[in-house]
Amino acid sequence: MKDALLRTGPHPVWLLGEEYDAAHITCLVAYKPPAGLMVSLPNLSLLHGTGAGVDALLAAPDLPADVPIGRVIALELSRMMVHHVLASVLRHLRRGETYAAQQREARWVRHPPRDIAAFRVVVLGTGAMGGAVLAALGALGISAQGWNRAAGPLADALHGAMVAVVLLPATPATRGVLGTTALTALADDALVIAAGRGGQVDEAALLRELDAGRLSAALDVFDAEPLPPDHIFWRHPHAQVTPHIAAAPHPDAVARCVLESMARVARDEPPLHPVDRARGY
Amino acid sequence: MKDALLRTGPHPVWLLGEEYDAAHITCLVAYKPPAGLMVSLPNLSLLHGTGAGVDALLAAPDLPADVPIGRVIALELSRMMVHHVLASVLRHLRRGETYAAQQREARWVRHPPRDIAAFRVVVLGTGAMGGAVLAALGALGISAQGWNRAAGPLADALHGAMVAVVLLPATPATRGVLGTTALTALADDALVIAAGRGGQVDEAALLRELDAGRLSAALDVFDAEPLPPDHIFWRHPHAQVTPHIAAAPHPDAVARCVLESMARVARDEPPLHPVDRARGY
Repeated sequence: MKDALLRTGPHPVWLLGEEYDAAHITCLVAYKPPAGLMVSLPNLSLLHGTGAGVDALLAAPDLPADVPIGRVIALELSRMMVHHVLASVLRHLRRGETYAAQQREARWVRHPPRDIAAFRVVVLGTGAMGGAVLAALGALGISAQGWNRAAGPLADALHGAMVAVVLLPATPATRGVLGTTALTALADDALVIAAGRGGQVDEAALLRELDAGRLSAALDVFDAEPLPPDHIFWRHPHAQVTPHIAAAPHPDAVARCVLESMARVARDEPPLHPVDRARGY
Repeated sequence: MKDALLRTGPHPVWLLGEEYDAAHITCLVAYKPPAGLMVSLPNLSLLHGTGAGVDALLAAPDLPADVPIGRVIALELSRMMVHHVLASVLRHLRRGETYAAQQREARWVRHPPRDIAAFRVVVLGTGAMGGAVLAALGALGISAQGWNRAAGPLADALHGAMVAVVLLPATPATRGVLGTTALTALADDALVIAAGRGGQVDEAALLRELDAGRLSAALDVFDAEPLPPDHIFWRHPHAQVTPHIAAAPHPDAVARCVLESMARVARDEPPLHPVDRARGY
């Protein structure tokens, strides 16, 4: 954040570890603030996350009860997520793993393309990111539907789908939402893309499906991050692992959200993208 | 083609190898007709390719001089090409190869995302497929420009580009168009996507860039197809090989073009998507 737009904004900025006067701090920007930091700042008027998800911030035991919380919603973030998800969906649609395996054996064998009319994607989460992913899939002629907690049972939505994209916010209500029932509803040879926050896919249930060769997975988020070096996902033939890189905002994008939210809070308005503590996002 | 729409159309259909009366054949649908077949059909009023490229048909030594030629232009074909090209472009944009290599070593290391403002794609070929690819890239916020033979020097267009997508028709004028001069104009770490017809990328020149680790390639078409099992591309760490599957039309899509072209030719009109023999497409 050191070189970010925030530094050139109208407010002085201190980094953690620098010397500051706690009474001067009115805004804290953090992904996961160290325990005790927030209660040490008596004049906070804004808490702000560093990305779209604020679950780590909300989980802090010393979270002040009455300070408004903002999060980052940026075109750039949604666009990165769209690119990340599309890369995996299109690779699955065009049998990328099959052809990569054939390349290792120098085998020139052409398979019929997947029937796009029967290729359906379900996007779990219909917020800024889920909405952008749905629009991008539709524009490419790929059938896609959104699912959120207001919709019916997840297993019904997933029935026969070829791809499940998990982009839900991390809340107690979404924890483990993609469990055995939901996973078994997916079509044979379907792909699970986890790219929001860890904890929503039941990793043990998913592993059973991967082991059976029935599903494959493109996993960017995990129960434990970093994924431990001895974790089976690293070397599973049906799992692609990336280190939580789907949508990481540029510091300037964070700064723009923070500066605008500070201006709004100074006018006694809510932050630009206010967090509802009860919903968790 | 046996089960295609063509069989249920208004005209009797014979497959090669079946018994037919040569005088009855007015339309030949072929990718690369066996030598002597065309001259054996005295009443041809239409020759029709099985895909977008008709180079193999035009190269036949017994090609009749005055029979109109049609080719397949189908939404489905362009869409498949868009999906194929986007899968490779997005994988490159999001450093898919880097993260796949890290997965093999169980390494959780996050790299800064590529700067999308500096990520430029050049699409060689601005026909139905090239145009569809350009539109899809633009819709995803990825800077893309088309190049064709009416544009200026190819090396100028490619200067500093991060991806070159080769979708030109196969004609004498496009043979070897992506040679040393054009390849060296590309940015370091750029990707070459060959997905139209073989012969347009100078494979020896490309191999030198791959060996140097300066470029990588996603190759679907080759000088020799099938790619021989001992070819270095199969096992090159910077080459992805697919067996010419980018855009293979469904037989029904071919049949729709053929039936419509037959109807047009019967009315003394040109085929639906007429081939200009001089241009080669």
